Amino acid sequence: MTDLLLRLELSAFLDHYTNIIDSDRLEEWPTLFTEECLYEIIPRENEDAGLPAPVMYCDNNRMLRDRVLSLRHANIYEKPAYRHFVSGLEFEIVDETTYAVHANYMVVNTSQAGESAVYQAGRYADEVVRTADGLRFRSKRVIYDTLRVQTLLAYPI
Amino acid sequence: MTDLLLRLELSAFLDHYTNIIDSDRLEEWPTLFTEECLYEIIPRENEDAGLPAPVMYCDNNRMLRDRVLSLRHANIYEKPAYRHFVSGLEFEIVDETTYAVHANYMVVNTSQAGESAVYQAGRYADEVVRTADGLRFRSKRVIYDTLRVQTLLAYPI
Amino acid sequence: MTDLLLRLELSAFLDHYTNIIDSDRLEEWPTLFTEECLYEIIPRENEDAGLPAPVMYCDNNRMLRDRVLSLRHANIYEKPAYRHFVSGLEFEIVDETTYAVHANYMVVNTSQAGESAVYQAGRYADEVVRTADGLRFRSKRVIYDTLRVQTLLAYPI
Repeated sequence: MTDLLLRLELSAFLDHYTNIIDSDRLEEWPTLFTEECLYEIIPRENEDAGLPAPVMYCDNNRMLRDRVLSLRHANIYEKPAYRHFVSGLEFEIVDETTYAVHANYMVVNTSQAGESAVYQAGRYADEVVRTADGLRFRSKRVIYDTLRVQTLLAYPI
Repeated sequence: MTDLLLRLELSAFLDHYTNIIDSDRLEEWPTLFTEECLYEIIPRENEDAGLPAPVMYCDNNRMLRDRVLSLRHANIYEKPAYRHFVSGLEFEIVDETTYAVHANYMVVNTSQAGESAVYQAGRYADEVVRTADGLRFRSKRVIYDTLRVQTLLAYPI
Repeated sequence: MTDLLLRLELSAFLDHYTNIIDSDRLEEWPTLFTEECLYEIIPRENEDAGLPAPVMYCDNNRMLRDRVLSLRHANIYEKPAYRHFVSGLEFEIVDETTYAVHANYMVVNTSQAGESAVYQAGRYADEVVRTADGLRFRSKRVIYDTLRVQTLLAYPI
């Protein structure tokens, strides 16, 4: 039963993460990561080939906060209208407070013309740790299948 | 742990709701609402601007039942083939028997020609109450992102 | 509470099933079925009309293993890049160790050109049994809405 409840807790944490992005509360996004952390978005082809070439790469929390600031002050990007859908969560217990978590994600985006379509699909490969403040990502790797997604990749997924 | 189980219960309730629509058991749809209730479908733009202009609006259970009757007897609409997908559930406990529940939804529709595509995406903003008969919606607000969805909006989402 | 935890367990089992397919670990696919079993993929129209005409049909575990072998050795199909999304799980307890499980599924596929789209939607109608080795499918019926999906249906869904 412990594992089932842990699964539920991890699922709630991922749901909270995606809601922060979808409701444009980006300032809260870095608060879900530990101070030392990794966040990267990487195409699946590179991941499979072992070639590191992320399209977004942040290796500490300050870089995450900088990313948000720059998104807020640079108006060069059309603000996306994302809806995240997460499915297929699985995890392994690495140690007492560390979990390796995997899940499929899909982002549906609605264009300014009002059309909704699959914008991006892929999988999350995360390391989640239990801290005094609750669950946090020590590492979140967003590995995407979709190749034609470059324009909006300034935003977190 | 209580919160995790409550989350699971609310998730089961939403799943039951979407299955009733997807399997075309519309007669059961009003039974998931309290007698005094609100059901509305509203475009996100209006919601964000604070402008009330729902495309569907029912403010008691009788209106829900009327809606089903009219759908059953008016054959002017092509019957949709919906599949709902719900993700990102979060909730707050308002009082001992009332929960404010939010989730992303997506409806995939399959046309008569046999093609499946994202028909609509948005989010549910619900008030769920615990009654003697189980969980019920006191209010269900369907806030959609997609603008090009008018034709089929006679059906509940 | 027991029912809620059973729901969680069944959900974890479906997630494990879809991850095996999405991560191309097809050799593990038959291990999720009992020795005597049924796996079929059938269009919704036939299901609704009571006409048995599955596009894939395996009625024992050996046929599932043969299917995998033939997929591994026949290179006539472009390998798909599937992402499964499952929602709307409901179940009934048939007897102490048997559960009738229903859920919506959607498969997003990414083409070799790098475009992701809804490839197929439908529902699972499964019979899951509790064995000494854990949960297993005694029967898994994949009932799809989408008609234009024939080419890749050599792969399990």
